[in-house]
Amino acid sequence: MAEKTLEDLFHDTLKDIYYAEKKILGALPKMAKAAESDELKAAFEKHYAQTEAQVERLEEVFGIIDKKPQGKTCPGINGILEEGTEVMKEFKGSVALDAALIAAAQAVEHYEITRYGALTTWAETLGLNEAVALLKETLGEEEQTDVDLSALAESSANQKAQMAAE
Amino acid sequence: MAEKTLEDLFHDTLKDIYYAEKKILGALPKMAKAAESDELKAAFEKHYAQTEAQVERLEEVFGIIDKKPQGKTCPGINGILEEGTEVMKEFKGSVALDAALIAAAQAVEHYEITRYGALTTWAETLGLNEAVALLKETLGEEEQTDVDLSALAESSANQKAQMAAE
Repeated sequence: MAEKTLEDLFHDTLKDIYYAEKKILGALPKMAKAAESDELKAAFEKHYAQTEAQVERLEEVFGIIDKKPQGKTCPGINGILEEGTEVMKEFKGSVALDAALIAAAQAVEHYEITRYGALTTWAETLGLNEAVALLKETLGEEEQTDVDLSALAESSANQKAQMAAE
Repeated sequence: MAEKTLEDLFHDTLKDIYYAEKKILGALPKMAKAAESDELKAAFEKHYAQTEAQVERLEEVFGIIDKKPQGKTCPGINGILEEGTEVMKEFKGSVALDAALIAAAQAVEHYEITRYGALTTWAETLGLNEAVALLKETLGEEEQTDVDLSALAESSANQKAQMAAE
């Protein structure tokens, strides 16, 4: 067996995030349905559309390295989504539900940010300039989604949860 | 059963990250042992000492809300660490090992950043000023660790993986 290289690590991690994005596509409609506030529902719906485009970008990156798009089970995202499902059940019908949903979604965003961050750096090292541009575009979207969710948490969900508790 | 509140969400998430930090304390020595470069070994060892202090800070936060420090199984960190173990095995002895280890550690850092971020915001909403200060201190350390690992990846591990592959 040939020694593993950075190309292998790049390809493996691409498969990992491809699997993750597809799982996220499955989870987002449930999160949008569960959300109490219209703003949060809209944020999840917007991110669903973004995620579809991100999957297509990943397929382009697979093409750039001459590989077929293929997922690889990613225990990280499975665990994060499992926690999100748990918290949705536990806080269903409560004033803290949206705050819990936002935190669950931000855990997903941060997982994606770290994977796209690593992939971007490796693509730069490997001189895959087209891939760098595609990965950076998605990374920027994930970072913006995280910022938007923080703003939503601070401006509404947390206040609502607290006011109702007083 | 009383309706769940933001206090409950704060307490639940505190238990989640307390469990996570203890699991991370178990994983870091293995990652330090596996690392090829002295700089990366040193980074993991430094973060181990930091994590011990972070666990103590969490115990102080439990005290602030009059609860006993207690963990709660966190599928998110379990999945992330499982992936880290997999990648360590797969890239053992290869030029890409340190790049893989850094990415695994950054996934852990991002999980912590998102949890401490949410906890800090909720502590602010709940008026738990002492807890805010403690959580912010840890959040700052996690963010700095992530930046340091990125610098290490860019300056050495990725280059090494690539040069050896040429």
